[in-house]
Amino acid sequence: MCDLLRINSVRGVMLADGQSRFSINGEPVNHFLGTSTFSEYTVVHSGCVAKINPLAPLDKVCILSCGVSTGLGATLNVAKPERGSSVAVFGLGAVGLAAAEGARIAGASRIIGVDRSSKRFEEAKKFGVTDFVNTSEHDRPIQEVIAEMTNGGVDRSVECTGNIDNMISAFECVHDGWGVAVLVGVPSKDAVFMTKPINVLNERTLKGTFFGNYKPRTDLPSVVDMYMNKQLELEKFITHRIPFSEINKAFEYMVKGEGLRCIISMED
Amino acid sequence: MCDLLRINSVRGVMLADGQSRFSINGEPVNHFLGTSTFSEYTVVHSGCVAKINPLAPLDKVCILSCGVSTGLGATLNVAKPERGSSVAVFGLGAVGLAAAEGARIAGASRIIGVDRSSKRFEEAKKFGVTDFVNTSEHDRPIQEVIAEMTNGGVDRSVECTGNIDNMISAFECVHDGWGVAVLVGVPSKDAVFMTKPINVLNERTLKGTFFGNYKPRTDLPSVVDMYMNKQLELEKFITHRIPFSEINKAFEYMVKGEGLRCIISMED
Repeated sequence: MCDLLRINSVRGVMLADGQSRFSINGEPVNHFLGTSTFSEYTVVHSGCVAKINPLAPLDKVCILSCGVSTGLGATLNVAKPERGSSVAVFGLGAVGLAAAEGARIAGASRIIGVDRSSKRFEEAKKFGVTDFVNTSEHDRPIQEVIAEMTNGGVDRSVECTGNIDNMISAFECVHDGWGVAVLVGVPSKDAVFMTKPINVLNERTLKGTFFGNYKPRTDLPSVVDMYMNKQLELEKFITHRIPFSEINKAFEYMVKGEGLRCIISMED
Repeated sequence: MCDLLRINSVRGVMLADGQSRFSINGEPVNHFLGTSTFSEYTVVHSGCVAKINPLAPLDKVCILSCGVSTGLGATLNVAKPERGSSVAVFGLGAVGLAAAEGARIAGASRIIGVDRSSKRFEEAKKFGVTDFVNTSEHDRPIQEVIAEMTNGGVDRSVECTGNIDNMISAFECVHDGWGVAVLVGVPSKDAVFMTKPINVLNERTLKGTFFGNYKPRTDLPSVVDMYMNKQLELEKFITHRIPFSEINKAFEYMVKGEGLRCIISMED
């Protein structure tokens, strides 16, 4: 996504002088993602710092990084489901579960999780998911399955897989007249979104979001407050806690993926 | 559009008993578009009646029919440009000029008319159009031309031609981050809207509208009031006035199209 948006996430040096502020044995060590927080002390550009509630436990709120914030904001800031409405979430990884958590916080009464693995449904219930559609169990377009379940379509949908077929399904599964679909997942570079114009003329809305429309510096403190006020539950996102000395094991887990959401790497 | 939306505009009979209320020499005459107003007296379903300001001149406000209301509402109710913003309008027929009129009323400071005929530009100025793009003069995609004119894209666009290439241009010519494109024009049945998902993820919004999101019965009286308050100018939409005895000439003009917007057929 950052590549597609031409945001340089791997610059590795400070903007002002093109130099790194870190070194080990005289050799420069690059900055990482603008924050370089795998150290006790760090040097960051002032634009990369947000002041949050000092009482917030850092070993929890640190997961308000790109994935969880994006999913949460996609629902709360962009899809904006009304209390009692229905929301479909495509993809039940960390981003999709955060989108579901946003729908739960907004008071959606029906949250339909869509994934190709049924194993994810049990966990997803903790995030407010009430219904499950296993894409691998259907031969017809998922928008038809959802239209049937909901008497014409959901009020809102959030697409968190980046699969182009899911993107199209997510748009076409919202109810005509008022439905809003929000695209979050990052597509392959060659993917093309295709739909009959009548699906738009029927008064559906298609939107996209980057970082859930949160402005990190000004808006993230309020997300931390949502956690402190117990509206937002972060504990359930954490599946593994790994000492810093085993950080490479954490990367291995990440690459494997299965069943894993957020890893927190802690001081030993 | 009505066909696509499965609205039966040629039912020709009353819903309650499937019969017509008109006859001539004992032969039934069908109802027309639910109103049958080419007669001094008519019978309509109560759902087809809206009470408007009794001082409104009927020979002007009668043009608040499908086309003009749709274009006006597409801008005022759906695109919602802010004061001082830029709006591109694709197609400068009656619907597009009504969309431009909506942008003028909303206080847009730049209204870019897009059409394949330069002849329409002079007239369009009366409707607030400030800039003109002649599609037949450009070899490259019109969204690139507009991006160049506007330093990245317009704030809002309204597509009133139904041409699928214009629909795609109208979406891609709005600025990323906040741009909203509204589709109004009726596409051919086989047309497919195609865009790279990144154009959505970049935080553009795509919307469609039917009848400019006006609910005819409850909302049209307020549009009549806009005319009575001199916000909305209807006179400039009227290009021909034809006596009822020559109504077939009016239909001929309509079929020919060129340079014509609204015809009012008047009592002799």
